[in-house]
Amino acid sequence: MIYFRSDYSVGAHDRIIKRLQETNMAHTDGYSLDDFCYEAQDLIKELIGSPESDIHFMVGGTQVNLTAIAAFLRPHEAVLAPKTGHICVHETGAIEATGHKVIHVPHTDGKILPHEIDETIIEHEDEHMVLPKLLYISQSTEIGTIYSKKELMALREKLNEHNMYLYMDGARLGAALTSSENKDLTLQDLPGLCDAFYIGGTKNGFLFGEALVIVNPGLKEDFRFTMHQRGGMRAKGRLLGIQFEKMFTDGLYFKLAEHANEMAKFLREGIKEKGYDFLVHSPTNQIFPILPTSLVSKLEKDFFFYRWCPFDKERSVIRLVTSFATVKEDVDSFIEAI
Amino acid sequence: MIYFRSDYSVGAHDRIIKRLQETNMAHTDGYSLDDFCYEAQDLIKELIGSPESDIHFMVGGTQVNLTAIAAFLRPHEAVLAPKTGHICVHETGAIEATGHKVIHVPHTDGKILPHEIDETIIEHEDEHMVLPKLLYISQSTEIGTIYSKKELMALREKLNEHNMYLYMDGARLGAALTSSENKDLTLQDLPGLCDAFYIGGTKNGFLFGEALVIVNPGLKEDFRFTMHQRGGMRAKGRLLGIQFEKMFTDGLYFKLAEHANEMAKFLREGIKEKGYDFLVHSPTNQIFPILPTSLVSKLEKDFFFYRWCPFDKERSVIRLVTSFATVKEDVDSFIEAI
Amino acid sequence: MIYFRSDYSVGAHDRIIKRLQETNMAHTDGYSLDDFCYEAQDLIKELIGSPESDIHFMVGGTQVNLTAIAAFLRPHEAVLAPKTGHICVHETGAIEATGHKVIHVPHTDGKILPHEIDETIIEHEDEHMVLPKLLYISQSTEIGTIYSKKELMALREKLNEHNMYLYMDGARLGAALTSSENKDLTLQDLPGLCDAFYIGGTKNGFLFGEALVIVNPGLKEDFRFTMHQRGGMRAKGRLLGIQFEKMFTDGLYFKLAEHANEMAKFLREGIKEKGYDFLVHSPTNQIFPILPTSLVSKLEKDFFFYRWCPFDKERSVIRLVTSFATVKEDVDSFIEAI
Amino acid sequence: MIYFRSDYSVGAHDRIIKRLQETNMAHTDGYSLDDFCYEAQDLIKELIGSPESDIHFMVGGTQVNLTAIAAFLRPHEAVLAPKTGHICVHETGAIEATGHKVIHVPHTDGKILPHEIDETIIEHEDEHMVLPKLLYISQSTEIGTIYSKKELMALREKLNEHNMYLYMDGARLGAALTSSENKDLTLQDLPGLCDAFYIGGTKNGFLFGEALVIVNPGLKEDFRFTMHQRGGMRAKGRLLGIQFEKMFTDGLYFKLAEHANEMAKFLREGIKEKGYDFLVHSPTNQIFPILPTSLVSKLEKDFFFYRWCPFDKERSVIRLVTSFATVKEDVDSFIEAI
Repeated sequence: MIYFRSDYSVGAHDRIIKRLQETNMAHTDGYSLDDFCYEAQDLIKELIGSPESDIHFMVGGTQVNLTAIAAFLRPHEAVLAPKTGHICVHETGAIEATGHKVIHVPHTDGKILPHEIDETIIEHEDEHMVLPKLLYISQSTEIGTIYSKKELMALREKLNEHNMYLYMDGARLGAALTSSENKDLTLQDLPGLCDAFYIGGTKNGFLFGEALVIVNPGLKEDFRFTMHQRGGMRAKGRLLGIQFEKMFTDGLYFKLAEHANEMAKFLREGIKEKGYDFLVHSPTNQIFPILPTSLVSKLEKDFFFYRWCPFDKERSVIRLVTSFATVKEDVDSFIEAI
Repeated sequence: MIYFRSDYSVGAHDRIIKRLQETNMAHTDGYSLDDFCYEAQDLIKELIGSPESDIHFMVGGTQVNLTAIAAFLRPHEAVLAPKTGHICVHETGAIEATGHKVIHVPHTDGKILPHEIDETIIEHEDEHMVLPKLLYISQSTEIGTIYSKKELMALREKLNEHNMYLYMDGARLGAALTSSENKDLTLQDLPGLCDAFYIGGTKNGFLFGEALVIVNPGLKEDFRFTMHQRGGMRAKGRLLGIQFEKMFTDGLYFKLAEHANEMAKFLREGIKEKGYDFLVHSPTNQIFPILPTSLVSKLEKDFFFYRWCPFDKERSVIRLVTSFATVKEDVDSFIEAI
Repeated sequence: MIYFRSDYSVGAHDRIIKRLQETNMAHTDGYSLDDFCYEAQDLIKELIGSPESDIHFMVGGTQVNLTAIAAFLRPHEAVLAPKTGHICVHETGAIEATGHKVIHVPHTDGKILPHEIDETIIEHEDEHMVLPKLLYISQSTEIGTIYSKKELMALREKLNEHNMYLYMDGARLGAALTSSENKDLTLQDLPGLCDAFYIGGTKNGFLFGEALVIVNPGLKEDFRFTMHQRGGMRAKGRLLGIQFEKMFTDGLYFKLAEHANEMAKFLREGIKEKGYDFLVHSPTNQIFPILPTSLVSKLEKDFFFYRWCPFDKERSVIRLVTSFATVKEDVDSFIEAI
Repeated sequence: MIYFRSDYSVGAHDRIIKRLQETNMAHTDGYSLDDFCYEAQDLIKELIGSPESDIHFMVGGTQVNLTAIAAFLRPHEAVLAPKTGHICVHETGAIEATGHKVIHVPHTDGKILPHEIDETIIEHEDEHMVLPKLLYISQSTEIGTIYSKKELMALREKLNEHNMYLYMDGARLGAALTSSENKDLTLQDLPGLCDAFYIGGTKNGFLFGEALVIVNPGLKEDFRFTMHQRGGMRAKGRLLGIQFEKMFTDGLYFKLAEHANEMAKFLREGIKEKGYDFLVHSPTNQIFPILPTSLVSKLEKDFFFYRWCPFDKERSVIRLVTSFATVKEDVDSFIEAI
């Protein structure tokens, strides 16, 4: 069975495993108050060019999203998110469970455009409605598309008008930044654009781990309290510092993401050559080809992937995901098989 | 610096690390729907002698406690817990953040006795008060003491009278079961006593991981929904299955706990011999000697531990914790130093 | 200034005021545990033909909705509601503040049709999504339309397929039942169709007060606990019993609603005669004429009403609401003015 | 049957009923955005000498407490309250249902002293614990005692040290201010002492209604959003303005409270003369005599009151409450009967 099901189907990159082994018997204090974490935090601050940001390590995107939003918003404040957003559909109402409404906003290829914010906000006129306060976006999006730097700047400007926060879910931030179609967006741009964002590890070669970056000084205070309250603090928090330090030391994080993107590109081009189309043009490690449903059934014998949705009577959309662990041979096998 | 600060100050037992390495590149499905987890679940069900129980793997005691209680209780139902309980003081109000009151109950050496339940319940007479519905206890307790089988049976009987659940926090369950003073309580007894309990890994040689066992059929339904909603589900959930399978295959879990207990016993006896007393008699891996505050300050130069509380003008209580990684030499050093 | 702004712009019907005066100095116990409430509850049970239902008196639709839903659902269970639903837009996220997601469902003239339930549910396939469990509808709807008995029966059947509850917001139930276009739906039908519903008083001549009817036995237990917890219990709860008893004794409730409907009908027909159209055909006490925006501005000098939304460049939709207190002269003045 | 059961056993003072009647058919806008409310707000601001405070009208103490605390605190912030506090025992966990822990603090006769705050706060040292942020007190307390101005000033000073808010539950504020043992505390002192407090009407001759006063500018923003979200806003909000305006126009509020206190004083002195003692010395409208249990049983045939708690084998504590509606004859009857 060949896996194109997800980017979290194996363990970690072997340099991560090796580093865990090397550091295994060192004693440290708990809850990320250790030198491994401090060093990783310094490294990240340097890479993003924002020494005054706060970095918090957590495990899992849902955990990060719910903890950040619970800490950032007052009870009547709401989140705007594209209908395809992870918090809208795939987190079992985690944000609502913290008491906040998530307003589903129309989107374009998984991305929110400034005018869509205006249209939503205009309906929220007084205290009978929730107060839109935070825009949630993902980079790359849940359907593999990416925001350009220019698009993010336009969003930022629009949000400033409405006195709103920008929060970026970076579960697949590596894939977005290393996409061959990303012109000029870099890690260093994010602190100037976002109030907070997270750098995802779980889907890019970590055993687990995401780094939340809080840029807006007004959102920093007492964050560790909410983190602990929501179950987001790890006794052996050092494991997160160890992994982030290794991943960001010599660009490993970006190399792994680049590899995943390249494997997806091979898949995309191979499938295109065979004459098939895609649900959306996605230049990262998730692609959504439209294939005859009969072919999909046949492929499922050798390949493990996700049926995304029916397309028409005879065709279905599937999702193929590549990762740091995807090998060229598996890509070739898939293309041969179709 | 010698660490008696906690039982989570190093990584994992090396057989865990080795097993993670061996299984690292196997592809599996996510969210604990993989063979590693299935096997570990079967193994645990066999060990506890309860094939019909449900097993869920999570990371961190706070996460398990808050998820279980959120899933088990209706909004007006409350938790009873000893004042020393982890959920009462050390989880930043995690249970209250799910909407439930935690009623602090007087205790005896960290343990709840049946009559203390009655005294609390009698004050809750109608709908102006919350409805006491779940008793939270820890085994071993936060101050290292243990419940005997007989004590647990008496609690169970009392709770049956009041139609209440028994939930056991087993962050240090290994230490309790392998304590030299545990006469006859075994893993197999727990399904008959508890509605739910968890087997803690993080504090007994895992990298991380706890296994929640839901025994009461009325509490099983849809648990994975709440688990995901609270951020408790792990994309690479297999890591939990892998660790539990290794730990419970040939009794490793118990051997590690036994070692920790033994190291604590050496400490206890050594300190006693030097003429010092203890806050409480604790037959597990946490001990609470009462030492002259001046001595405590001196010890802090070479040893890393927690000052628990002042005892009197000249003496302080400290907490010493041992783990699978504690070595006899460090114990000897400590005893020499006092 | 003539009011068509809302159906809660004056105090109460004078028989209500008189009854409050008559009963004013009688001593009773608090929290609706008094004979006034008991009698009103018995009266309502008789009128709905469901002696085994539970009746709870509260104040305000938002209070009833949030208390009922908080009491009925487990944390991962979600509400389906038409996008126009009061809980979707006009309750400041009250339902989400109790932790539950509200899924906005497409609607037809403010009403949900069975196939729209299917389409929403099909997207909720596993524990990564919330579990749709309760359908919220309003009768009459927020835009004045009504469900026929046949439509409600079809909804009921569809919900049974999905093991879901039907909850009916009856803020304007009187208007729906006495609408000239209501063929055959009666109060007695509701217990057979709904798991719970409420009979609204505030918008039909009460000072305040709504009666929640819980039909489904599985939803009754401990309801007063949640009611108190959410601030929904009134110390002088008798005031609710007194009003409901008076309103339902000789059909006053229905007479007042009928009057409001009739006034709206006069308005509707008068406006139609003048050649104007409506946003939706609404046979109850709320109508939504489409008028030239310039005319709207002129009307605002003498009439107090709500601008609903722009219609096109030159026309606007306004909302006119009538009540038990609307007099024919005011209706005539309005028609003359346009 | 003679009622000493509560201060909410009848309707309202007849001037309130009369005023409701007079204003009944005036049309106003909803949700307390009407002239009745504006005038009452102005009147209250003048009486408390704080024109810049915000006044919000709600119904019921639980509603006010939970709404205020939900609006004022961030998720990890906790409430300190005396164990006898209404929010600790008699509101079915309403505060916890908004996500906040209520820390039960030891008290002296229902009152918190500054040193008790220190002792509680010292245990809350870092992010593993909730952050104590708001002190809840009642004036008069649940057991009828009152804080002197000096005591409140000492509390204020202590709370300033800890950067904490003072919130005063004034369900029986009238009784406290008009107590014959209140030396110098006036309504005008409260804005200087409290961050927020409420003036209770339900227990002092209103049909219902409490006025929350928010003094601290940092707590004012967007309060009406939370108020609506928690079901605390009333469509016919004018009813609150009408009552408050009438009650505060010529000191009626204070006269009614004074009457209740005087009736309690007669009871207290009469009971004392008969040789009985009290649980606590309470100079307001609640008294707690200790009577032989056999006598209590006999009294229950003619009088309706609350058994507070057993005192010893042969004696019980009962609670007697007087109100604006208590008449001297009933007091005399009670004293005769013992």
